[in-house]
Amino acid sequence: MSRPVNVVVLGAGSWGTTVASLSVRNTPTLLWARDPDVAVEIETDRRNSRYLGDRLLPEGIRATDDLGRAAREADVLVVGVPSHAVRMTLMQIANDLRAWVPVLSLVKGLEPESRLRPTEVIAQCLPGHPVGLLAGPNIASEIVDGFAAAAVVATQDDRVASALQPLFATAVFRVYRNTDVLGCELGGVLKNIIAIASGMADGLDVGDNTRAMVLARGLAEMTRLGETMGANPRTFAGLTGVGDLIATCMSPRSRNRRVGESIARGMTVQEAVADLGQVAEGVKTAPTVMALSRDYGVDMPIAAEVEAVVAGLRSPAEAYRGLRRLAPGGEHDVA
Amino acid sequence: MSRPVNVVVLGAGSWGTTVASLSVRNTPTLLWARDPDVAVEIETDRRNSRYLGDRLLPEGIRATDDLGRAAREADVLVVGVPSHAVRMTLMQIANDLRAWVPVLSLVKGLEPESRLRPTEVIAQCLPGHPVGLLAGPNIASEIVDGFAAAAVVATQDDRVASALQPLFATAVFRVYRNTDVLGCELGGVLKNIIAIASGMADGLDVGDNTRAMVLARGLAEMTRLGETMGANPRTFAGLTGVGDLIATCMSPRSRNRRVGESIARGMTVQEAVADLGQVAEGVKTAPTVMALSRDYGVDMPIAAEVEAVVAGLRSPAEAYRGLRRLAPGGEHDVA
Repeated sequence: MSRPVNVVVLGAGSWGTTVASLSVRNTPTLLWARDPDVAVEIETDRRNSRYLGDRLLPEGIRATDDLGRAAREADVLVVGVPSHAVRMTLMQIANDLRAWVPVLSLVKGLEPESRLRPTEVIAQCLPGHPVGLLAGPNIASEIVDGFAAAAVVATQDDRVASALQPLFATAVFRVYRNTDVLGCELGGVLKNIIAIASGMADGLDVGDNTRAMVLARGLAEMTRLGETMGANPRTFAGLTGVGDLIATCMSPRSRNRRVGESIARGMTVQEAVADLGQVAEGVKTAPTVMALSRDYGVDMPIAAEVEAVVAGLRSPAEAYRGLRRLAPGGEHDVA
Repeated sequence: MSRPVNVVVLGAGSWGTTVASLSVRNTPTLLWARDPDVAVEIETDRRNSRYLGDRLLPEGIRATDDLGRAAREADVLVVGVPSHAVRMTLMQIANDLRAWVPVLSLVKGLEPESRLRPTEVIAQCLPGHPVGLLAGPNIASEIVDGFAAAAVVATQDDRVASALQPLFATAVFRVYRNTDVLGCELGGVLKNIIAIASGMADGLDVGDNTRAMVLARGLAEMTRLGETMGANPRTFAGLTGVGDLIATCMSPRSRNRRVGESIARGMTVQEAVADLGQVAEGVKTAPTVMALSRDYGVDMPIAAEVEAVVAGLRSPAEAYRGLRRLAPGGEHDVA
């Protein structure tokens, strides 16, 4: 392209800040922080101490707390606010964003009442814009620290993804493409619930086999729901499905996994979330996903146990006993 | 069935001993150990100290070093010897085994010269017997310790699997069925190579994102080869595919993972294998799998790097640099 593409990232949490720190190596990048203090710290100190500790962000990164200014500057808009804030944030900028600007979601939760996926909420708030997402096995702090990772840009039109790919790719951050937006998005949403189950397994010290079983059977139920909703089942075997699932379930730093572990070690859900001090999307998403599974008639025994635990209806130990009572049949059967 | 079914397990390594310790809870079980001292220790002390340390095996477990006697007693034969010993062992009992006795493989390596899978070698040595396998995310020591786990019995005829299922299932060991013998068997073979790559990632301290990327892209190349060979791609998203892959790549106890880690920390392949003191199937299988990938024209960049490292042609750090140079395209593209 003839002139530089301005990337604007909404949301200065750990992942929004990290994505901005990737794109700023390739193209001018502005980060919008709701909290003015965070914007000032990023601009003056090149740090986001609340979410990324002492880590120094790349040179050239800019930040603002002026949402309208950010939206007006965008040639590409990246949405990295928590799922409950997507609609509220985008409604404010519907008239500031230039036509045709593509919008990429980083969000991994469903809107509770509507059960809409983030890209669906974005399409409602910003009609006419190409909408996609960036997702994959990406623990934010590791990427800021320069460790290698891979992700997927998913857009329905592969040409849009091809144009976006080089904005986020670096020597150690590989960006693949996929046109299955639904499958990629569901992977990121559903894995948070399995991660809570995996964290509970860690907290109960049930061993590596059980954890692998929870992940494999969890992936099976994610894939079942996704396929029933119209996604390509192979997407769930890729970076945004099993890749993200593994990173989220295995990393000591993963928030949803930590919430599950804290609950299994005796905290209430409220205490575990408070202890985390950040958003754990899986806690809020579990009931919404179970509503979807009932709508589509898809059996999701692991998600059902997680829903019961986060609702305070069952202890993690009871949930694991419940999972064991299910009779195993054919591996591709529904339960 | 009217009279008890005698299960005979050939091979008293950690996994053969563990499977015998599962079936003996359901039915009379005899374990054949090549080493007479191991057989005596199992019979008299109910321990297999070389492979399972101090762990006490269940009551009723019997052991022998008499291969012919073991074969003659079998109503179900379980083959748990290392892949290089399958043919040699079974040739000796071809005339001792009763007709129609089903044979279940626990073996997770290919025969080097012939490139045959264990069930194919079994079918050559024992023609006319129904052949299947038992596989899944099963770290042996955890199962002996009573932790929950799940596995798959795969036979082409689902009725055979249905009859075998209750022989191995316990309250905490779930046994599923699958008729895709090829896919289940390839999962167990191929994951050992990805586990070496994952162990190298651990040894190089490259972080959780990279490890998740190696697993997700490794699963993609396992699935590609399997599908080209005629397996059901969904099998690789199940317990014998991604489930076994996760357990093998994540458990500190996994042998192939440990070999990869030791090499990355500076040992030679020979030193790493000697340090392990047990068979790491992935080291021997890597060149055979690469021969298969060339025969079938399937690109397997991770397996290729592992092959080069175990052949001493490349260091783990060079292998990881090599993987990073591949240009990412569509997620379902070949590389």
